[in-house]
Order: sequence, then C-alpha cells, then structure tokens
Amino acid sequence: MSEDEITRQLQHKSIRHFTKQSVADALIKTLIDVAQHTATSHYLQSFSVISITDSRLRAQIAQISGQQYVAENGHLFIFVIDQHRAALLAKQPQLQELGSTDKFLQGASDALLAAQNTVNAAESLGLGTVLLGSILNDAKRLIALLHLPTLTFPIIGLIVGYPDQKTQAKPRMPQAAMHFTNGYNLPAQFQQDMQAYDEVIAHYYATRLTNQRAESFSHLLTRSATTSPKKRSELLSALHQQGFLTTK
Amino acid sequence: MSEDEITRQLQHKSIRHFTKQSVADALIKTLIDVAQHTATSHYLQSFSVISITDSRLRAQIAQISGQQYVAENGHLFIFVIDQHRAALLAKQPQLQELGSTDKFLQGASDALLAAQNTVNAAESLGLGTVLLGSILNDAKRLIALLHLPTLTFPIIGLIVGYPDQKTQAKPRMPQAAMHFTNGYNLPAQFQQDMQAYDEVIAHYYATRLTNQRAESFSHLLTRSATTSPKKRSELLSALHQQGFLTTK
Repeated sequence: MSEDEITRQLQHKSIRHFTKQSVADALIKTLIDVAQHTATSHYLQSFSVISITDSRLRAQIAQISGQQYVAENGHLFIFVIDQHRAALLAKQPQLQELGSTDKFLQGASDALLAAQNTVNAAESLGLGTVLLGSILNDAKRLIALLHLPTLTFPIIGLIVGYPDQKTQAKPRMPQAAMHFTNGYNLPAQFQQDMQAYDEVIAHYYATRLTNQRAESFSHLLTRSATTSPKKRSELLSALHQQGFLTTK
Repeated sequence: MSEDEITRQLQHKSIRHFTKQSVADALIKTLIDVAQHTATSHYLQSFSVISITDSRLRAQIAQISGQQYVAENGHLFIFVIDQHRAALLAKQPQLQELGSTDKFLQGASDALLAAQNTVNAAESLGLGTVLLGSILNDAKRLIALLHLPTLTFPIIGLIVGYPDQKTQAKPRMPQAAMHFTNGYNLPAQFQQDMQAYDEVIAHYYATRLTNQRAESFSHLLTRSATTSPKKRSELLSALHQQGFLTTK
C-alpha cells in the first residue's frame, strides 16, 4: 500500500512524443493482460484490442486523426467495442440483441475502462501515454482499414512509449463545479467559479513551457464546437453501419 | 517506478461487501481529484460525479440495480456524462451540437476513463471497489431521482470501501481471442480456444470459495441476453430524453 500511484495520477499529463525505443513484446503482452483484468460487465469481456505495427496503416490512422505524432514512435493500440465475438459464440436468437443500446454501452464501458487501466499500468512503469479520441475523425474509414466486422466499433486509441518530452499537468476545474451530493446541483456561484477557473487556465497557457497562448475554458468549448472535423458528424451513421443502436 | 501496481491490477477482483468503516471525506476529495486528473477529450472535462450519502436515495438506487449490496456499506459514486455544464458556459449556437453522438461519446469516454482511474487510486490504498452497470437497469428513474438535466446521463456507478470479503480474480479469455495485429482477425482456432476457455471457466466456478456452480462462457452470454432487466431496453429512449443522439 503506497500513495505513489495517487501522486502520479494527480500529475498525469499526456505524452505525444516518444523516443525510438520500442516497447518490448513481453511488455505489450503484460499491458494487454492488465487490460483483460479490468472489471467487465457480466464477465463478458466485450472488447478487443488491435496493435498497429504496420507503418503504412499507422500513417493512414495518423491521417484520420489529423495528428502527425500518431504516425511516429511508441506503440499504438486501438480499443474496440466487441459484440461480434459474442455473436459467433452465442446462439442465433441473441444476434439482434447484441446491437442494442444496452450492449453498445456495455461494450463501450468495458473498452474504455480497460484503456484507462492500461494507461495506469504503463505509467506505473514510467512509460508515457496519450489517449486518442481523434481516431474517430473518420470512423468509417478506420473501420474499413481495420476490417472491423459488424457489432464492433473502435472507441479510443492509445499510444504507449518512452517519453521524449516534458509537459505539465493542466489545472482542472473546481471540484464544486463537478462533484455533487445526492443529485445534480451546480452551486449558486458556479458562473463565478468558472470565471475564476478561466483565469487559472489563462495563466497556465500563458506560462507553460511550450506553445504559450491566450486561452479560456469558454474559448476551448467554442473552439471544440466550431472546429470539429466534418466526418465526426457521421459517428451515428458509423454506429448504425456496425449494427449498433439500430433498434433500442 | 515499481511493478506493484501491475501485480495488483492482474489480481483485480470486484468487492461487493464492505465494512461499516466510512471512507473519510478527505479521501473522497482525493479520489475526485484523481478522477479530475484523468485524460480528458479536448481538456473539456465533460463529466460530473454525484456522491450518494442519503440512505433513502441509496436504497432507491439499490432497487434500480436489483442488488441489495448497493444499499449497504462503502461510498457510492455515480459518474455522469455532462455536456449540460458546457451548455451553460458556451454561446447559444453550440447547444444543439452538445447533444451529438460525437459529444455523447466524448462525455462517455471522459466519465468512464475517470471512473477506472478512481478505481486504480482506491485499490492502490487497499480499498475495494465495484463498478455498477446495473444503475442503468432503469435509467429514466435514476435520472429523475438525481435531477439530471438535459445533456447529462449517468453512465456507471462505483462503490469504494473497506473490503469485508475475499474474492478470487476470474480467469480471462486467451489473448489470441481479443488482441489482434493490424486488423480484426480472430485466429483460425478461435472456436477451439474458446471451448478450452469454457473449461477454465467451469473449473473456476466449480472450485471458487463461494457460490460454486456449473458455468461456461457461452452460458454467460445466453444468460446475459435472456435475463436482461426489461427497462434496459429503454436506454436509447432515455438518451434521447436527455438530448443525446437525437440528430447525428
């Protein structure tokens, strides 16, 4: 029992640049082993992981993500919601049920919990990590590239590697704005709290080690809404294509 | 740097029974702090956490989950996808966008990654945890009980506390059945691998410390599909009610 892990978790920062040192196969196997031992809904393990080792495929995924660093060093994993395997093993009548909203959320939960557990394992060994929501900038293309069958869906990417940059932890919003008791109740002073937090964010971006700029939480929100890659608007269509959320 | 965390992660098991010792407020605050420092899409922190301290409310949530232990000891958190806070802070035109599939998945990702990070923090201190997908057995009722506004959705529950039971880690499926390279490719011997895994599961259930029974992976799949609580079929409707996935 130690507080080391919590100390590290409180200093978490994403690492986007890694050295050329590759992550050993035995370590990849251990990380997958950790992912597998994450809590899983109904013990059904409704996710899979795809390791990307082909550099041409990886360059195509980097192009989808719009991030050059995705093509570079470190080991790239794609976490996949997987009800396809269950469909192969279960009896026929359950097939349609496996595309339900319920089963989609269970698979998303299994896959995302496993991804974070993998992050914690990697960081406990001094490795750096970055989770990639950007793999969904063109979900249909990614699905085609990875030959993902019906009842599977790529939910998040993860690069793990040996850090080649120093970054600083970003300050989080006040707990009062996101932790409530017995119901959803933003405090009366919520808008003022968030204005004060804007100043904390402004200070962080103005004084950080690299890429200094003027920034605020409300601007981040607006930017996220107005600069979202066009094909992210096809996510529901991509889910339907994979057989999810089509009924109820 | 130590392997302690990975050793612990590989032995992970859910704990459902806790002693009466309450989790100190300072520790709850630390756990929320860890949740907040989880990687978050676009730095937008699109989730909230609700602590349930009212015993009557907790009994109602236990009733939804169908699990008596949910009403008992340990500290109960509900992790909530939250685009409502963003809607209050962003300019009007972004409001509709915040209910998109994209924003729903980003919020689900933020909330679920944070939940697992909280699990890892708690377990590093020797606490036990259980994640609760069962809070979604009647999502609309839970939403009403927690006064969850539009653009929020409860995605998972978590109980953290001092363990009052011993359990064994459940054996996971062979890695070959869930870890692929450069694309989705189940191995040729997949069905045989899973039959062998059925024997591993059968042995686990036949010899574990409590609740011994005959079991197999295919039976777990069938049971999950055929005994799903009725109102889980209302999850898509509940998401729509909260303003999610209504457009694209």
